[in-house]
Amino acid sequence: MSWRATVLTLFPGMFPGPLGTSLAGRGMERGLWSLEARDIRAVATDRHRTVDDTPFGGGAGMVLRPDVVDAAVAAAMPEGDARPLVFLTPRGAPLRQELVRELSAGPGVVALCGRYEGVDQRVVEARGMIEVSIGDYVLSGGELAAMVLLDACVRLIPGVMGAAESAEEESFSAGLLEYPHYTRPAEWRGRRVPEVLLSGHHAEVARWRREQSEAVTRERRPDLLSEQRRAAPLHPAASPA
Amino acid sequence: MSWRATVLTLFPGMFPGPLGTSLAGRGMERGLWSLEARDIRAVATDRHRTVDDTPFGGGAGMVLRPDVVDAAVAAAMPEGDARPLVFLTPRGAPLRQELVRELSAGPGVVALCGRYEGVDQRVVEARGMIEVSIGDYVLSGGELAAMVLLDACVRLIPGVMGAAESAEEESFSAGLLEYPHYTRPAEWRGRRVPEVLLSGHHAEVARWRREQSEAVTRERRPDLLSEQRRAAPLHPAASPA
Repeated sequence: MSWRATVLTLFPGMFPGPLGTSLAGRGMERGLWSLEARDIRAVATDRHRTVDDTPFGGGAGMVLRPDVVDAAVAAAMPEGDARPLVFLTPRGAPLRQELVRELSAGPGVVALCGRYEGVDQRVVEARGMIEVSIGDYVLSGGELAAMVLLDACVRLIPGVMGAAESAEEESFSAGLLEYPHYTRPAEWRGRRVPEVLLSGHHAEVARWRREQSEAVTRERRPDLLSEQRRAAPLHPAASPA
Repeated sequence: MSWRATVLTLFPGMFPGPLGTSLAGRGMERGLWSLEARDIRAVATDRHRTVDDTPFGGGAGMVLRPDVVDAAVAAAMPEGDARPLVFLTPRGAPLRQELVRELSAGPGVVALCGRYEGVDQRVVEARGMIEVSIGDYVLSGGELAAMVLLDACVRLIPGVMGAAESAEEESFSAGLLEYPHYTRPAEWRGRRVPEVLLSGHHAEVARWRREQSEAVTRERRPDLLSEQRRAAPLHPAASPA
């Protein structure tokens, strides 16, 4: 049984899109995962195929109806479908590599893409959807967010990444940002590669990279360091007194 | 002068992809913005069109060469091109709606998509690239990240969003997650819409929504509340003693 992704969207034509090429696309061609994009509008029953309505309480934008979304979910997930149902929404908990790993190790995922103002909260609750946000910015819809989620999951499916791609997850796996990379030429426009990388001393290279990772994380993502300190103290002496 | 996006990528065929449909696609058709995807490989000068090499210091994966990336940037940005150059990388600072607004209000953006292990850090520094990450997860490349950045920017270009889309930026604009949405039917499978939304009392609706926003933010994103507290105290009495 390969990993199965189903996307519920008002724009099924957007899929597979970028997921049909490169790493994810090759994995799909080799049968390591499959993707089905289902049009939410297909389950609408009225003559105009209405899927949304104005929000109770007023305000701009339109809200996807609970009955329509529920019917789309029911049509996509037959009895016994054990895949988690993820709703991509800026209200969601931030997507983290931990959830990506968990979803990737399971049977697949069903992803609901929001559009317009949002989705009626009752169906989100009734269906026990996992509300996930890919970041603190506003997109025109959930489709790109679903693609991001699927790309992150698919690359971890055994066999998808080859020798050309690094199988390690550098950033975030150790709770630190990655160290900087350098390749040939050793000198370029007066800028030399850091000497230690040319030294051949594996232990020194490893130490330098660790220091670089810690430095860039301190500068750009101090929040990651404090998370890490909670989990397993790196510098006990430096923890707040 | 419309807003101009240029993407430097090893997979130009991925573009415009999802950006060619829906909101962003209509904006492009109407000339409100333009998108050019340039193949980094086109500037490689050797017979095999080599763009990458093994990392100094060892390790898995391949690194994009500084001279190749620099030539790709030079070809994409003629003298006097004032657009910021953004490098999508998990090492970057987290993308926030503030940067989206800033980029959207400017002349456009040039986005460099990483692939393989990464990009030689010397060209990132020499070109003064803005290193941006769209979230704490690992993607197979920077292409989807660039699409996310562009979609977020494009929807804010004047004229792109119509009446059907909400012009307000609910989530994040107030430093809070959005309140839940409800639409017809007022009762669905025994679940009624919260009464206050049917009351017609605008002030009470606004207060309820504010409370809901605060509650979901406290539950899922306490980090946003502490950021907000730093900026402008909401509940001075509740700040840490």
